[in-house]
Amino acid sequence: MASGRVEPAYCRGSHTLVVSMAMFKQNRQRLCERLHKNNKVPKGAVILLQGGEADTRYCSDHEPLFRQESFFHWMFGVEEPDFYGAVEVDTGKTMLFAPKLPAEYAVWMGKLLTEDDFKVRYEVDEVYFIPERGLNTDSGKYSREAAFDGISEFKVNNEVLHPEISECRVFKSDMELEVLRYANRVSSEAHKEVMRNVKPGMYEYQMESMFHHYCYFQGGLRHLSYTCICGSGDNASVLHYGHAGAPNSKQLHDGDMCLLDMGGEYYCYASDITCSYPCNGKFTEKQKGIYNAVFKASRAVMAAVKPGVSWVDMHLLAERVQLEELAKLGLIQGDIEEMMKVRLGAVFMPHGLGHFMGIDTHDVGGYPEGTERINEAGLRSLRTSRTLEHRMVLTIEPGLYFINVLLDQALANPEQARFMCQEVIEQYRGFGGVRIEDDIAVTEDGMECLTVVPRTVEEIEQLMAEGEGHKVTLPQEAGKPSV
Amino acid sequence: MASGRVEPAYCRGSHTLVVSMAMFKQNRQRLCERLHKNNKVPKGAVILLQGGEADTRYCSDHEPLFRQESFFHWMFGVEEPDFYGAVEVDTGKTMLFAPKLPAEYAVWMGKLLTEDDFKVRYEVDEVYFIPERGLNTDSGKYSREAAFDGISEFKVNNEVLHPEISECRVFKSDMELEVLRYANRVSSEAHKEVMRNVKPGMYEYQMESMFHHYCYFQGGLRHLSYTCICGSGDNASVLHYGHAGAPNSKQLHDGDMCLLDMGGEYYCYASDITCSYPCNGKFTEKQKGIYNAVFKASRAVMAAVKPGVSWVDMHLLAERVQLEELAKLGLIQGDIEEMMKVRLGAVFMPHGLGHFMGIDTHDVGGYPEGTERINEAGLRSLRTSRTLEHRMVLTIEPGLYFINVLLDQALANPEQARFMCQEVIEQYRGFGGVRIEDDIAVTEDGMECLTVVPRTVEEIEQLMAEGEGHKVTLPQEAGKPSV
Repeated sequence: MASGRVEPAYCRGSHTLVVSMAMFKQNRQRLCERLHKNNKVPKGAVILLQGGEADTRYCSDHEPLFRQESFFHWMFGVEEPDFYGAVEVDTGKTMLFAPKLPAEYAVWMGKLLTEDDFKVRYEVDEVYFIPERGLNTDSGKYSREAAFDGISEFKVNNEVLHPEISECRVFKSDMELEVLRYANRVSSEAHKEVMRNVKPGMYEYQMESMFHHYCYFQGGLRHLSYTCICGSGDNASVLHYGHAGAPNSKQLHDGDMCLLDMGGEYYCYASDITCSYPCNGKFTEKQKGIYNAVFKASRAVMAAVKPGVSWVDMHLLAERVQLEELAKLGLIQGDIEEMMKVRLGAVFMPHGLGHFMGIDTHDVGGYPEGTERINEAGLRSLRTSRTLEHRMVLTIEPGLYFINVLLDQALANPEQARFMCQEVIEQYRGFGGVRIEDDIAVTEDGMECLTVVPRTVEEIEQLMAEGEGHKVTLPQEAGKPSV
Repeated sequence: MASGRVEPAYCRGSHTLVVSMAMFKQNRQRLCERLHKNNKVPKGAVILLQGGEADTRYCSDHEPLFRQESFFHWMFGVEEPDFYGAVEVDTGKTMLFAPKLPAEYAVWMGKLLTEDDFKVRYEVDEVYFIPERGLNTDSGKYSREAAFDGISEFKVNNEVLHPEISECRVFKSDMELEVLRYANRVSSEAHKEVMRNVKPGMYEYQMESMFHHYCYFQGGLRHLSYTCICGSGDNASVLHYGHAGAPNSKQLHDGDMCLLDMGGEYYCYASDITCSYPCNGKFTEKQKGIYNAVFKASRAVMAAVKPGVSWVDMHLLAERVQLEELAKLGLIQGDIEEMMKVRLGAVFMPHGLGHFMGIDTHDVGGYPEGTERINEAGLRSLRTSRTLEHRMVLTIEPGLYFINVLLDQALANPEQARFMCQEVIEQYRGFGGVRIEDDIAVTEDGMECLTVVPRTVEEIEQLMAEGEGHKVTLPQEAGKPSV
């Protein structure tokens, strides 16, 4: 086969994880059992899902690299665009409907797989080609037509599936956990590679480039889970830095703290990891203080996580620990519980403690029908307010940031300002921020941390020192070329 | 500014090209002059363009990295999504309409630029915020509303602009050429980096990874122009290999020819380069024969290209040279002109000789109104049939491929089969293919080659030998991890 695959499994070379198609079969079984158990479907029901579609950028013929739609991936593991899939709920019998490409496409796309090829590749019961669609041979685009003629003869229920499949996705099977572990292990190693090589004078995007290269070259992770956030100095306080309007383009200055939120995905399963450290490899006392405050919050949450615990309580625990530590550092003063009441923690950590993670970085199922967001600062940013259960996978990502707009608001608000030591806080403006983000799986009686990177100040400084002497060479200034 | 930009110019660090906003001002002037000269617009006309929009993947909140729509980029050089732009044709006066983001977005996106900030950044006459749109604070998505209330008071002509702006894009200014040169230079160096490091045992995608890393780390090229085609062995004959269904996942075997079609883009300006060589660094006689046939065609075209020459004639020239060389190698025999009549060249090179390149890899303007495709094998794949003019930028990419489906068709067609030495051709099945692709600009009396990579067999073998001894280390097999 063109992809070099020799058995019905996903793999990107002998150094990468082999994922059996049995994982998706098990996912389908879990969904069918759930639909039955909850009496959601009549006898003879069939689940029908449409996969992601190939697309072109704007009016051009540029095809962005295809990435499968997440529900479809969870059900079938199909890598190619323009598929449909169906599952008989009573029997689990699975059918794929593949696009029938014109024979001449073999010249451009490689050997066209037959129905039987796909049946073997994805280990399903039946595969049928969707009748050829009208192909515009200039643009290469298909004219859309009603797929599945005759669908009107079936009774279609568009509402039952979404909540049930979302709920299935919340709980990861052993096989899914193994894939998440792999994506996390590779991404953890990639973070370490960046730590070993970063130095002042580098540009933020060069850290992004090293990270992606390591993930892809070493681990076969072609896609990253999300756009890399590589903030240095004050940029580390911009929560979604790295986007097209702020494209990781600042140069690293000696003394800058860096906040690197980067994760790769393997076969659509995500990782989401943040490391924070000074680009010169040596924490100042001030940096150490803030870092250790966040680290203490992270580990307090990890010690408390287990089935039955409320995620909202975990958020509040992290806030409380961080406020205690900020008080010790002299940035705030007063009664911690009073601070909690006026949501002082959200001034320094405006985002939620963490979120579900799986095939999507922000995975589905955070607020099932009947649950609501808590409309208070910080808490309203939580992507779930659920009680933890075995097999949930989440990020734990406390952080402390010095965001001028939020500091100014708080200082202007007497309820909050009374706890704030303004003259000390002023010294932290421009500091940036610290976030420590790990991915964890809730176990039967606690949790497993999937992320394996240096976390204590000492561990980080030691790894960064190892890089000395064999760091990458920076590009030469090219005599300032310009147009 | 959050992006680290200190003057109104695009730049990704002191080692990368500085692009002045004057380039876009000049583009706008060229367009306005053309509209006037061709009497296409009444007095007081205003050009109104909508930029690319921020989007999320399927139903998730995953935001793919934004890349500007190409016409909008050519006019304004704006990096951010969700802009509109307007130009008064009589005066050239330029206005940008920027999305007004809610103040709290500063926490997530960084310092929100003011109207004046954007005015300075993009060197335009006026900037106005588009009134705030309804923001869904859960999904982060905006509800769409009619932008530019009152547009109905204007007389809108939706037809005049597209052909005129496309025609402007066909002819590159000196400043545009300089950006294209830079993208090409960086991408050429990235190809050389891959050549130095490739070796049997590596996977195809690891070449993609090295290429992207070099482009981004060394040259600031965040986006690639298109998905990398990294075919080895027989995969080198799959013209659009590398897509999601054939994701560069084969391992390189000793003796495999590689065909690497990869290019990076800088500030949306593309490069598009193909190098072909054996992964072990040493051509066999057979590989050398096919390679030199393609190389001879490439250089024959380059020697002939100048204003006034027909691109169709260039395609036929390349075909003719390649057929002559295939005859010398004993794969075909007979009268070359007779072979040309039955389109034998297209059996071995089913694609066109090359295409316009600029902000899009396959740039606009190939078939202006009134010109038509030539409906013959090979020629119908040409993306333009125009006569060459000064300042056009094109790829020259002859190739020879051994594609079973096309060989079988030809052998079954007596008109073509009579020229084919079947027993020799059979020895080339599985060979893969060779393509040599350079980007060129048509000058006043000839052409300039923008691509600078080793092209003779000797140059390639020498560069690949240089890599010996300091090649990258391949990942260890991780004890075959599997799920």
